[in-house]
Amino acid sequence: MIDAPRPTPRAPRTRVELITIGDELLLGFTIDTNAAHLARQLASIGMHIVQRTTVGDEADQIARAVKDALDRTGAVITTGGLGPTSDDITMQSIGALFGRSMRLDEAHLAWMQERWTKRFNRPLPDANRKQAMLPDGAAKLENRHGSAPGVWIEDDRGRWVAMLPGVPREMRGMLGDTLLPLLAARATGGTVVRSLTLRTTNIAESLLADKVDSMEGGPLGVSLAYLPSIAGVDLRLTVKDLASADADAALSAAAARLRARLAEWIYGEQDTDLAAVILDLCRTRGLTVGVAESCTGGLLGARLTAISGSSDVVMGGVTAYHNDIKRDLLGVSEATLRAHGAVSEEVAREMAAGARRAVRSSIGLAITGVAGPGGGTEEKPVGTVWIAADIDGDVRTRLLRLWGDRDEIRQRSAQWTLELLRQGLGSGV
Amino acid sequence: MIDAPRPTPRAPRTRVELITIGDELLLGFTIDTNAAHLARQLASIGMHIVQRTTVGDEADQIARAVKDALDRTGAVITTGGLGPTSDDITMQSIGALFGRSMRLDEAHLAWMQERWTKRFNRPLPDANRKQAMLPDGAAKLENRHGSAPGVWIEDDRGRWVAMLPGVPREMRGMLGDTLLPLLAARATGGTVVRSLTLRTTNIAESLLADKVDSMEGGPLGVSLAYLPSIAGVDLRLTVKDLASADADAALSAAAARLRARLAEWIYGEQDTDLAAVILDLCRTRGLTVGVAESCTGGLLGARLTAISGSSDVVMGGVTAYHNDIKRDLLGVSEATLRAHGAVSEEVAREMAAGARRAVRSSIGLAITGVAGPGGGTEEKPVGTVWIAADIDGDVRTRLLRLWGDRDEIRQRSAQWTLELLRQGLGSGV
Repeated sequence: MIDAPRPTPRAPRTRVELITIGDELLLGFTIDTNAAHLARQLASIGMHIVQRTTVGDEADQIARAVKDALDRTGAVITTGGLGPTSDDITMQSIGALFGRSMRLDEAHLAWMQERWTKRFNRPLPDANRKQAMLPDGAAKLENRHGSAPGVWIEDDRGRWVAMLPGVPREMRGMLGDTLLPLLAARATGGTVVRSLTLRTTNIAESLLADKVDSMEGGPLGVSLAYLPSIAGVDLRLTVKDLASADADAALSAAAARLRARLAEWIYGEQDTDLAAVILDLCRTRGLTVGVAESCTGGLLGARLTAISGSSDVVMGGVTAYHNDIKRDLLGVSEATLRAHGAVSEEVAREMAAGARRAVRSSIGLAITGVAGPGGGTEEKPVGTVWIAADIDGDVRTRLLRLWGDRDEIRQRSAQWTLELLRQGLGSGV
Repeated sequence: MIDAPRPTPRAPRTRVELITIGDELLLGFTIDTNAAHLARQLASIGMHIVQRTTVGDEADQIARAVKDALDRTGAVITTGGLGPTSDDITMQSIGALFGRSMRLDEAHLAWMQERWTKRFNRPLPDANRKQAMLPDGAAKLENRHGSAPGVWIEDDRGRWVAMLPGVPREMRGMLGDTLLPLLAARATGGTVVRSLTLRTTNIAESLLADKVDSMEGGPLGVSLAYLPSIAGVDLRLTVKDLASADADAALSAAAARLRARLAEWIYGEQDTDLAAVILDLCRTRGLTVGVAESCTGGLLGARLTAISGSSDVVMGGVTAYHNDIKRDLLGVSEATLRAHGAVSEEVAREMAAGARRAVRSSIGLAITGVAGPGGGTEEKPVGTVWIAADIDGDVRTRLLRLWGDRDEIRQRSAQWTLELLRQGLGSGV
């Protein structure tokens, strides 16, 4: 029942503009995660986003932005404004720009009606009926993940707009199921954009830059960007306008040189999560992990278990937010707590051992600190965090003095604890 | 040592364009959280972002986007491209657009040198020196959170660009410390944009829309947007172009009508986190909370403890990823596990009771389910989650059948467990 747009025999357009639509994006009530996902997926088929524009739910704003983008690149993807409510006007605005009227798609209406009856056991709400109105001559893009159809509209000069929903799950599904295969089929060759990211932690951006600038052998021959985040600093290598094999060779050569210079700080490639690196290392060696968290309150466990398949390594853990729990469930001694305070090397050490005991794991990880904004003292200001990694009784500890807000301090604490374990397991990538 | 730009005596510009700069944003390696933060902060002083554009680290792209935006609104904020590395060219590009040459700011250089010596105990890396080069005639915006200065540049027609760093912590600090007070001082009156968000959970977007459309008394008189997310559907009410008092009155009236119609689903206003609502309810009643998590692996605890001040309510908890831990630390009986399986109402109930016992709390929350992508069966497919809330022995349970990926299923499980407790505590807002 879904019409697949047929590839048109024209030169493929590899430069795309993205237009994200919604007052909620401009007003800051939604963080746009779609753009990043789209960019990465398009790059995988050699297309790249050259500009992104965000406009509100107003017909003339949408039409102007789409027209400007079509004039620049002739290829536009939009997200948002396809929902059932009155502020969803993407299709009408862009249909009008292409001089098309709206028509009811009977097949789509019937499909929605059936879906609601089957899935939610109730009739289709009236509000959803408008999602079956499509611009004349436009093709549907299948949506297996929600009720809004995606739309492909193209003019006689081969300029096109693909409209995707704004809900991330639906957008991602439709992109992967339908739009990417369609775009890949239209792209008949030419050059590609390729990127390779090396992930570092435990070193400042400017120190990395100094080390790279002082590398022997001259420039890398590819463009290099430094991307700092809470996880560390990513080094992104990019080549453009090369044939596929040349691009891969240039990236590999540059990456090898960076790895040689920066080995101790690099924990992975692309979007590798340090937690996934840790799980792989443990799995290979038959090690299991338990966690004991105080100021992070479960965040370290949540990070480890966010990785699917973590259950063969992660046994569980104890969140000991209160000292009583540190004592009762982790066996931290009252004397240690009294002598050194909850935020201390000794307590971190006993918590890590306690985690191993409590969940019978080979490795225990512990975090105890002051995440703020309250609770700091002169001796132990906000950001003071002790972490420990106990590997079969071989214990490493580290004092962190972190900056940032509560969220950043907690996230950095978790990242550093994973890094401490990685070092303990003695592994580069 | 920081030059504060003086307010100029002109009509204030309340419509602003935002330009975010960085290849990493276009390539999808960074999710832009700055835009949302900026939008909310600007709205608080009556300014609104009418368009957002993202361009790469190329001088001509940056200059064209800034020029277009200045032509449209005359007021532009940029983020990104102020760092120490060679791809950071925002200041040069915009300086050139304004016809200014670059000059070394000796005071800023000295400040950076001192900061590195004091803070990091080493000399300023060479790469950072370029952060002291500013366009002639531009004013610095103080950065207490990093080494890049912000920049304010203005032409003789009162058109301005404010350049902020891209690192979220630095951007937020500089915005709050310096730019917002400056913009507020320039805004001398006129109309405002005000928004009010009502947060719902446990109801679909289209059902909400049907209920709102069928409200008696006609339209709300303000614009209404539906913002679905993993937390639920937010209803955002917005008024524009009214004087301050009129705007507040219109919003209050509309919100009161929605509250009357949708009371059971509304848990809070604006960016209220359901976890914070729960903590407040518990604090008022002297209740404490313990958590027992299986498939969420710590996420529920992390959400509760993300709220500062949570330590007077949250005692701690147990992450029982493996059945042995459910038995050993939470006292779930072997017989129950065998008879019903780990993902069952009975186990959720025993986990909640076990959490109360383990951390001696009045409330126990429990989650056990199949987060996927593996582990599903015909009887208990991925997305099957049992949750329980035990309030002093009074237990509520609920079976969730969730959709989405592992991350969404885990996040929705945590949100629903908080909602189950809210219902158990018998409270609307």
